Amino acid sequence: MPLHLPLGFRFAGLHCGIKKNPQKEDLTLVHCPGGAVAAGVYTQNLVYAAPVAVDRARTPSSDIRVVVVNSGNANACTGERGLRDAEEMARLAAEACDAPAEKALVMSTGIIGHFLPLEKIAAGVRRCSQGLDTGDAAFMAAARGILTSDKGTKTTTRAVTSGGRTINIAGMCKGAGMIGPNMATMLGMLLTDAKLSPDDAQRVLKEVADASFNCISVEGHTSTNDTLLLLASGAAGGEQLSGADLQTFAQALKEMAIELAKQIPDDGEGATHVIAITVQGTKSRGEARQIAQTIADSALVKTAIAGGDPNWGRIVSAAGYAGVKFDPTKVDLAINGHPIYRQGAPLTFDARTVSQSIKASRETAVELTLGEGQEGITFWTSDLTVDYVKFNADYST
Amino acid sequence: MPLHLPLGFRFAGLHCGIKKNPQKEDLTLVHCPGGAVAAGVYTQNLVYAAPVAVDRARTPSSDIRVVVVNSGNANACTGERGLRDAEEMARLAAEACDAPAEKALVMSTGIIGHFLPLEKIAAGVRRCSQGLDTGDAAFMAAARGILTSDKGTKTTTRAVTSGGRTINIAGMCKGAGMIGPNMATMLGMLLTDAKLSPDDAQRVLKEVADASFNCISVEGHTSTNDTLLLLASGAAGGEQLSGADLQTFAQALKEMAIELAKQIPDDGEGATHVIAITVQGTKSRGEARQIAQTIADSALVKTAIAGGDPNWGRIVSAAGYAGVKFDPTKVDLAINGHPIYRQGAPLTFDARTVSQSIKASRETAVELTLGEGQEGITFWTSDLTVDYVKFNADYST
Repeated sequence: MPLHLPLGFRFAGLHCGIKKNPQKEDLTLVHCPGGAVAAGVYTQNLVYAAPVAVDRARTPSSDIRVVVVNSGNANACTGERGLRDAEEMARLAAEACDAPAEKALVMSTGIIGHFLPLEKIAAGVRRCSQGLDTGDAAFMAAARGILTSDKGTKTTTRAVTSGGRTINIAGMCKGAGMIGPNMATMLGMLLTDAKLSPDDAQRVLKEVADASFNCISVEGHTSTNDTLLLLASGAAGGEQLSGADLQTFAQALKEMAIELAKQIPDDGEGATHVIAITVQGTKSRGEARQIAQTIADSALVKTAIAGGDPNWGRIVSAAGYAGVKFDPTKVDLAINGHPIYRQGAPLTFDARTVSQSIKASRETAVELTLGEGQEGITFWTSDLTVDYVKFNADYST
Repeated sequence: MPLHLPLGFRFAGLHCGIKKNPQKEDLTLVHCPGGAVAAGVYTQNLVYAAPVAVDRARTPSSDIRVVVVNSGNANACTGERGLRDAEEMARLAAEACDAPAEKALVMSTGIIGHFLPLEKIAAGVRRCSQGLDTGDAAFMAAARGILTSDKGTKTTTRAVTSGGRTINIAGMCKGAGMIGPNMATMLGMLLTDAKLSPDDAQRVLKEVADASFNCISVEGHTSTNDTLLLLASGAAGGEQLSGADLQTFAQALKEMAIELAKQIPDDGEGATHVIAITVQGTKSRGEARQIAQTIADSALVKTAIAGGDPNWGRIVSAAGYAGVKFDPTKVDLAINGHPIYRQGAPLTFDARTVSQSIKASRETAVELTLGEGQEGITFWTSDLTVDYVKFNADYST
């Protein structure tokens, strides 16, 4: 079945020599010859990488022609030279696509603190621009070029009918470690041929990120490079989206972003479970997120799920130090639908049945209900396994 | 060499049947026949255990006669019944020592969410009270009775000359997992024969905890049961300590508390390194602690040190999401004395030399210097190893 790729974009991905394995793509170009409206959301880390600085200054935009991405080197913590390198990398991509230098965006991911191998990138960008294509194979090569420790590509495409027109949306992302809260927590691109204003694009993207990429973690370490871009070529034709049409589009985009975002903890380094933590009954969505994230980031919770152990005390006690006020005697907890704890006291339950349900499924559902209000959130994270530790003790500087 | 045990205390520890292994003590009594001034600091977790509720209400006090501790069962998340059980456990200890019921303190540690086996505890307390003794062997048995996953006892004793008198101080603590920031993060008792007022005892204990047990973590999970008690029998004789004498005492107590506290991450579950994270150049000590703790709690930092990898990017980026504002271009970093990063940019350094220095020593020194102010702190944590994950995936409910 062919992908629903948006009109107005060309793709390429290839190996330019950053990654050691010559079979692995490490450079991606996404070209929009007619120009695209572009929006971005970025890491909240104070220590942000050079490409984040470049893109943050260039979005929202009414006319971006090309996005260039390298994997294997994050160009983070590289000082003034890193900033010049990121600008140069964007300029090289623009030049290869006959576009003005400032109409390019740039993303990098990989090891922190090494300078970009600019000669390799320059040669790679030239080659890459010669292979740009609108087809599925080119899109998939581009999706491979942004990966680092991911086990495979993370993509989604969809055709949406909105206001009598067919709009295509495609998304790709990467991420399997250094995935924390606060923003995109990865690299991601959402591409569409819908026609959007820059302001609408920025507003919709922020809402979408809030419900998707801001609700996931692997180990809670907020990366220096997190970037999520939305590019809208307008090539589907018709008027700029507004009203109900814009809503339809935004809803589809949100669903696709959640689908992409969940793939990240599911592919978390060494992960054997993705844990869906639903916190409800809070005064605000922010409070629910804070509690869910604290549970998600507890190594004790993550190891318990890895071991198939319904150790609910670790979950309830993590909620207790999240920094949100609540009455502990009004707390309920269920794991995989089994009630475990009610109104602040343990229930009698069959630990073996719950343990079996954890072991039998890739996804574990943790539902914590407070008695404070009507808000809630779902947050996804990975469990913590021996393989995560092995991988990260060996990933070398 | 004999221990410097304070006068006015008797100790006992034995196995009463909570732990499976009959060789392991799981019940401790500390008796102060003449009464002791007592102070306490407790977990900041909203979900706090029943014994914490009891002790919090009873300290500071001018007359505590006995402390009873069990290990193997935390009596946490046990609702109203748990609270009644904690009060009953304290009452049993008071009764066995011919003291009024409310003059007892109680601590519990172990699995969350199970009710205390009160019959075993009642029989154990009676037997324990018959074995109370002032000697070193009794003190060490008491120190063993509070342990859970610890590899060994954590104790320190010292004789201090203050105002012409000899004052003895003894401390014991336990903790190897579920060790997070915000308060004692373990069970601990500091015992002295100095004469203190309840208010001085409480103030000094708070300062001491702030510099010691509040500067450690294993995985950052704040326990439900953290309790640090200070008991002062006054049996050394003389006046109540004040002025310079009180200062001398407080300084010794602080040094001993740091010595005890550092033993916890050093004994962290599966730990192969204790990481001493010094953050300096901040506007306040609180900001320094917040950054140090964020670095300490990053699984990526902990796994890097476990692997002997000077992956400074993980350290600097963790500082960046600690929630403290600073200028990233004014940051310096050294690992084990080797300068790695200066003014926001990487230095050339021999990664093999730094890696060897990490591998060769049990303690790794991480020094992060900001350019924002004159305050600083040292925070101790464990590295994260395969054995931590194995242990915590298997520790069963």
